[in-house]
Amino acid sequence: MNFMFIPLIFGFLGAPIIIWLFWWITKESTGTPRMKELAGYIQDGAYTFLRREFKTISYFIIPLAMLLFVLLGWQIAFGFVVGVLFSMLAILLGMSGAVRANVRVANAARTSAGKSLILAFRGGAIMGFSIVSLILIGISSLYLIFRVGPTNPEAVHLLVGFGFGASLSALFAQVGGGIYTKAADIGADLIGKIALHMPEDDPRNPAVIADLVGDNVGDCAGRGSDLFESSADNLVCTMIIGLAFVDIYGWNAVLFPLLIRSVGKITTIIGVFSVRKWGKRSPLTSLNIGLFSAGIFNLVLFYVLSIWFMKDIRLFYCLSSGLLSVFVVSLIVQYYTGIKGIPVKRIAESSQAGESINILAGFSYGLESAVLPMVLIAAIILFSYRMLGGGLLGIFGIAMATLGMTEMKGMIQSIDTFGPISDNAAGIAQMAGISKEARESLDILDAAGNVTKAITKGYGLTKCVLSSVVILFAYIFLLAEYQGITLTSISDIAINLNLAKPVIISALLIGATVPFLFSALIIRATSKAASKMVEEVRRQFYEIPGLFEGKANPDYSACIDISTKYSLKQMVLPILIGLIAPIIIGFTLGVWPLAAFLIGVKIVGALLAVFMFNSGGAWDNAKKLIEQGHYGGKGSSAHSAAVIGDTVGDALKDVAGPSLHILIKLENILSITLLPLFLTYTII
Amino acid sequence: MNFMFIPLIFGFLGAPIIIWLFWWITKESTGTPRMKELAGYIQDGAYTFLRREFKTISYFIIPLAMLLFVLLGWQIAFGFVVGVLFSMLAILLGMSGAVRANVRVANAARTSAGKSLILAFRGGAIMGFSIVSLILIGISSLYLIFRVGPTNPEAVHLLVGFGFGASLSALFAQVGGGIYTKAADIGADLIGKIALHMPEDDPRNPAVIADLVGDNVGDCAGRGSDLFESSADNLVCTMIIGLAFVDIYGWNAVLFPLLIRSVGKITTIIGVFSVRKWGKRSPLTSLNIGLFSAGIFNLVLFYVLSIWFMKDIRLFYCLSSGLLSVFVVSLIVQYYTGIKGIPVKRIAESSQAGESINILAGFSYGLESAVLPMVLIAAIILFSYRMLGGGLLGIFGIAMATLGMTEMKGMIQSIDTFGPISDNAAGIAQMAGISKEARESLDILDAAGNVTKAITKGYGLTKCVLSSVVILFAYIFLLAEYQGITLTSISDIAINLNLAKPVIISALLIGATVPFLFSALIIRATSKAASKMVEEVRRQFYEIPGLFEGKANPDYSACIDISTKYSLKQMVLPILIGLIAPIIIGFTLGVWPLAAFLIGVKIVGALLAVFMFNSGGAWDNAKKLIEQGHYGGKGSSAHSAAVIGDTVGDALKDVAGPSLHILIKLENILSITLLPLFLTYTII
Repeated sequence: MNFMFIPLIFGFLGAPIIIWLFWWITKESTGTPRMKELAGYIQDGAYTFLRREFKTISYFIIPLAMLLFVLLGWQIAFGFVVGVLFSMLAILLGMSGAVRANVRVANAARTSAGKSLILAFRGGAIMGFSIVSLILIGISSLYLIFRVGPTNPEAVHLLVGFGFGASLSALFAQVGGGIYTKAADIGADLIGKIALHMPEDDPRNPAVIADLVGDNVGDCAGRGSDLFESSADNLVCTMIIGLAFVDIYGWNAVLFPLLIRSVGKITTIIGVFSVRKWGKRSPLTSLNIGLFSAGIFNLVLFYVLSIWFMKDIRLFYCLSSGLLSVFVVSLIVQYYTGIKGIPVKRIAESSQAGESINILAGFSYGLESAVLPMVLIAAIILFSYRMLGGGLLGIFGIAMATLGMTEMKGMIQSIDTFGPISDNAAGIAQMAGISKEARESLDILDAAGNVTKAITKGYGLTKCVLSSVVILFAYIFLLAEYQGITLTSISDIAINLNLAKPVIISALLIGATVPFLFSALIIRATSKAASKMVEEVRRQFYEIPGLFEGKANPDYSACIDISTKYSLKQMVLPILIGLIAPIIIGFTLGVWPLAAFLIGVKIVGALLAVFMFNSGGAWDNAKKLIEQGHYGGKGSSAHSAAVIGDTVGDALKDVAGPSLHILIKLENILSITLLPLFLTYTII
Repeated sequence: MNFMFIPLIFGFLGAPIIIWLFWWITKESTGTPRMKELAGYIQDGAYTFLRREFKTISYFIIPLAMLLFVLLGWQIAFGFVVGVLFSMLAILLGMSGAVRANVRVANAARTSAGKSLILAFRGGAIMGFSIVSLILIGISSLYLIFRVGPTNPEAVHLLVGFGFGASLSALFAQVGGGIYTKAADIGADLIGKIALHMPEDDPRNPAVIADLVGDNVGDCAGRGSDLFESSADNLVCTMIIGLAFVDIYGWNAVLFPLLIRSVGKITTIIGVFSVRKWGKRSPLTSLNIGLFSAGIFNLVLFYVLSIWFMKDIRLFYCLSSGLLSVFVVSLIVQYYTGIKGIPVKRIAESSQAGESINILAGFSYGLESAVLPMVLIAAIILFSYRMLGGGLLGIFGIAMATLGMTEMKGMIQSIDTFGPISDNAAGIAQMAGISKEARESLDILDAAGNVTKAITKGYGLTKCVLSSVVILFAYIFLLAEYQGITLTSISDIAINLNLAKPVIISALLIGATVPFLFSALIIRATSKAASKMVEEVRRQFYEIPGLFEGKANPDYSACIDISTKYSLKQMVLPILIGLIAPIIIGFTLGVWPLAAFLIGVKIVGALLAVFMFNSGGAWDNAKKLIEQGHYGGKGSSAHSAAVIGDTVGDALKDVAGPSLHILIKLENILSITLLPLFLTYTII
């Protein structure tokens, strides 16, 4: 039992670091009165949305918790509630950091590029540390409360409630926040950029504040919750899988994931604080130093722990393969979406032939971009599986690869939140009229953002697919145990998961349709909300005299209201569909076909998500490339075509894609949670 | 042996019918001299393309046939060549009917709507009868040549060469023809409609003749080859599956598919000739009478043959479920793409908010439209499987459902080719200046086309998924036989196709990426060819004085050249990728993972294809709805937005989507053909 103090200590170690980061950031100046005013608007909007979103979520969470209590016992219900609350707390803390850092980054940009970059990065690190710490505290507390241990091994299963809570909370945060931000963004672009040819973040545009709020509630809080859920699910499921190998590694098989996460926090600290001024080196280099030092320290950690704690050097190779795959996938993503890659050039070039050809080009490269990462991930799966000799133990190898990859999450989350913070800073600078003096710093932030986005996307994608495979095996292991099948090899369940069985093929087919339906609903929700925003912005330009000339102020709050209202309203249907689908399959086709259904969801969901992320990213950068003066530059017909591609991509890459990532894992962890019910009440 | 004269007789029965149809059509007048001239251009262009395409194909076919001869024996090579030649002959005959019917339909439209509809339909029936007849002749001749029979049952496997030949020929025809037609169509639209605001088929537009040629080589020949291949593959694979049930049904299990196809020709004849003037009923009604009489006679036939030939009434239910599913799926497709459905209305409405929202709306409904058909198909699979008691025999039930569905193919192909013929007629009417007098008839043809398109799409989709499941089981059955596994139940191969095996999951994942890569390449090829066309059309308007004013003639042949050249050049890469992918998997991961790979290809390919078909169809009709005067009507900003959606959809629905349908089956039949090689030379 003593061991559990390690994760708890490392968990609570987050508190002083987070407090210090808050202190370090808030001691900086917030700049001119106008900047303070703007930052105030953004903060208000963001907190208002989060408050109302939490309220909406509670309508679902409270009855669901009661239902879980009645049907599955207090532990699952309690874990579920803790998962929801900790996830909310993490994103609340992270977003609080972001809305404080943004204006200070803008102000620092007036004097020092390096300072502004480090401020933006440390602002993001608040989210990173909040997530890492709260997961450790949450899981290890539940471990102690449920009295898990070698004498009570089955109790590990009870931890899934935490994962389910984190997943559900994440889906709400991502779908709601995503619709919010893209309604504002698309609405602002369609009227501002396309119809009125105004620049980005023009203060005359009524939707511009809503757009900046959106960066915080969508890109920052949404993504944070995504990472919280996938790390939590991953940890719980790796522990469940570890349970099957207690005869080989002892109880350490269950503890190893917790241990590696705890000690791994040191590498996050090293990584985060390596991002500082390194003499006269460029600010971008310091970001890379941070990333690579975290990576290298992780490898050392993997080596030591594999040998010392698990006494199996092969685990080191599995862990490392997962870690390295992140970097390789990031390179692929950078090729497809980077402003210097061939695809972006081609898309920008094809914009000269009009909107349709731009759309088709982005569509085509987006589809293609899914191929290499998936093949690589398939290779990692096979490598780590065979590294442990194939068979049942091979599954533990796959779990280890996922664990290795997840170790970078503190750093990754920091640079992920870095993105919306610098976007916000650029917006504030533009609106406060200081963008000229801050030009150089803002350009550096933007360049850094382009690289970090590729890395976080590569990470998100690898994590999504690999983690979902681990969650799937957790489901299969649990199911075998419930049905009294002693697993000595994977073949013991071959008859149940025989791909030649029509019911398995059908379930796979039905599962494959779910991401289509889900993203259809999300895209429609986003474009509905965006249409409302377009109407409102158009109305203000018609009805407020002098607005276009800059003589009158727009009504920012009306736009914020629309984003808030429609995102909370429109998020409900897709989420309900996502929740209900696996329940129907579990009760009708049965528990084994449900595994096939989940595989269908995963494969198609992951492919669609990569397509959406990368086509969106490439459209975005193709527009930027044209804005840099190529293929006719700003105001050319190629530019208008590229803006159309960019707005289409916005809904895909920032709402539907990230929501799919969450859905994939949510449906699986939900199935694990409800497994005892499906076994009791199968209908057909 | 005597029995085989039945399919041969029914096969050759096609000849007099086709000759009669040619006679009946060509005796009609071709109208004004201008109409004759235009029809001549179209015929020349179409035949030139087909000639050059056949030449390009021969570069692949001849070495491939020699390779097959050396590696797999003369029978496979011979069947392959026959498959290629018969497929080419069928589309040559069918297209010859179409390019003769088009101008006569236009001329008849000046006087009688009914007459023009029947002419267009019977023009299409030439394609229908050519396909039905040549498949019967081809397969039954090979059956006799290879001396297949109860004493030599294994020889049934040799028929796969025919299927492979038909599939490869189809992929070339569809990809090449599809790129041809859409390069011309998109090129004509982008400059003509969007930049210069000219109407559809305006004779001043240099790409307009290439567009009309494209209707014939893409929509007519391409689709015809698709149906030829899927019917051929389906017939061969159903016979291979039947082989496993000789102990239950005797040799009749193998013969039944051939018999039902032979006698089924009668229902095609009844159906086709039921489409005539029925008193004062509207022409549309006569089309429906044809469809329903074919459907009902098929049901009668199923009943009689199930009881008399197979002595198992349950087969009747399986056969019927397949047939009925076509109608249900068609209704779903009609809802999503029909001009009266809610989705099309919403897409048209959202065009008012600009191009991006139009694209997102079409995208969203397209994704959603894949859900219900897939769930229905999954239900049909489970129904027909359980109808025969599940287990191994259940697979025969699924094969029967597919067989039942395929029985409608003669009728379906006739109404499918009806589409391009009426499009051509409308084009000729517009260009020859007779469209005013023919207005009423052309509207009726157009309305009929809207219904027939939904039916053929629903058919294509159902057929694609169900057939591919049957081909998959043919692969599995053959593989089990080669490996000496006696199949007494599906569980005998459970260990080989265990979905929990990482290698199976990886193969599934890799297979799932193939449709993404393939359609990425096809879309890019199409947009490249379209860009070239845009350049050429733009050049002509700049360089030919008086062209826009209608005082000078455009250079139609330059555009025809571009379409021909670029389509033949661009089709090679995607086809090679499609061919190589399963070969790599077969030699590296092995033959059982290859089955999982094929399932990945099928599921994702089918979903992507439905999405592409339906979003494209919906964008098309949204544009038409606006052109009818809604949401601002022609020339409004909503209309321009809708035209963008339509051109994006063109590349998806008429090139990438149909090519995916073929790819899915090609990769599977290729794997069946090469199976002996994979078993001999697996690398890993």
